[in-house]
Amino acid sequence: MTMDLAPEYDEEARLSAQAVLAQQVRELMDAVVLTDVPEDEMTAVTAELVALTERLKAARRDRPPVPELTRNGFRHLGNAVTGACNPHALPLVIERDPEGGSRADLEFRPTHEGPPDSVHGGVSAMILDHLLGDAVAAAGRAGMTGTLSIRYRRRVPYGQPVVGRAAATRAEGRKTWVDGTISLPDGTVLVEATGLFITPTPWVNAIPE
Amino acid sequence: MTMDLAPEYDEEARLSAQAVLAQQVRELMDAVVLTDVPEDEMTAVTAELVALTERLKAARRDRPPVPELTRNGFRHLGNAVTGACNPHALPLVIERDPEGGSRADLEFRPTHEGPPDSVHGGVSAMILDHLLGDAVAAAGRAGMTGTLSIRYRRRVPYGQPVVGRAAATRAEGRKTWVDGTISLPDGTVLVEATGLFITPTPWVNAIPE
Repeated sequence: MTMDLAPEYDEEARLSAQAVLAQQVRELMDAVVLTDVPEDEMTAVTAELVALTERLKAARRDRPPVPELTRNGFRHLGNAVTGACNPHALPLVIERDPEGGSRADLEFRPTHEGPPDSVHGGVSAMILDHLLGDAVAAAGRAGMTGTLSIRYRRRVPYGQPVVGRAAATRAEGRKTWVDGTISLPDGTVLVEATGLFITPTPWVNAIPE
Repeated sequence: MTMDLAPEYDEEARLSAQAVLAQQVRELMDAVVLTDVPEDEMTAVTAELVALTERLKAARRDRPPVPELTRNGFRHLGNAVTGACNPHALPLVIERDPEGGSRADLEFRPTHEGPPDSVHGGVSAMILDHLLGDAVAAAGRAGMTGTLSIRYRRRVPYGQPVVGRAAATRAEGRKTWVDGTISLPDGTVLVEATGLFITPTPWVNAIPE
């Protein structure tokens, strides 16, 4: 048994190291967009990054880590929005909301800037797309995003806590409707979203009625 | 005059170096999410990245490079979606479509993965939000995104060329409606978007009727 479990633990340790690496790259990304060092220093750092990129490419997967069901639930470490091992991801960490649906404590970064001092509207849309999809699963349903509608109410700040929430509002056959928001911690709504999620035909038989 | 212009040229050279740095970080991001090197090598690379991040932080701006009008037109080097100096940005490079509106040749990356082998729907939404906003400007109008609706038709591939297009369809007072798509080069539509853009009150007097 010990022999059987050992490779799994090694893989977990490696994925943890990859998540730490990805988090450091997020710090680097902020440093890049905010840096004010002289040109020759930027060029020197770039050369070092070329070498480090090559070291990481010495062994390479065909694709990012795929979605998987683990002992601790579903995870997708390579996902562009939630993946701990993907530097592009915030990462969005979603919990079940005690009031129902899905909830995430968020803090956007300088790399997410659109209008001055504000998060890019497209970044808010990206986060809401995923959060609403999670709320479909939270409702015991399954589906892919069919349509997503976003309403922008107020600017979204970065570098301070905001809250994402989403919950299913209605289900009918293969369709599930979900509402979601990004809000300030005091409840002020900044962005609203509504999504219609469709269960792909091959999945229909797998859904509990 | 030469003395007056010199600082501007220095600044341009530095911004070019920063764009090269940001592009290298995009390569690094892909290498991170795809790497299969041993744990101790990931940890060693992380340590080197900590040191490089500190070097870039030795001189730091308060915020990413802001939108500006240059001799070559409008640019926003720090933008989360279009910014050449922001590693989070694709970057989206938009041109005027000879057929009217805005057009962009795109190629998504492994860091944009959502469903296996496909671009995350939220990433498509993020790109369309910006592209539709640009089409408002292309129509000689001005506005912030009020609502954005996305319809997902087919999976979006990464690592191969796709095309983004958007154009204003209607204008009425402070409102401008825009339609857009992400398509395969053969014209097959993958994602559709409609946006309603609102001219903020302080801008209204600045808009040509």
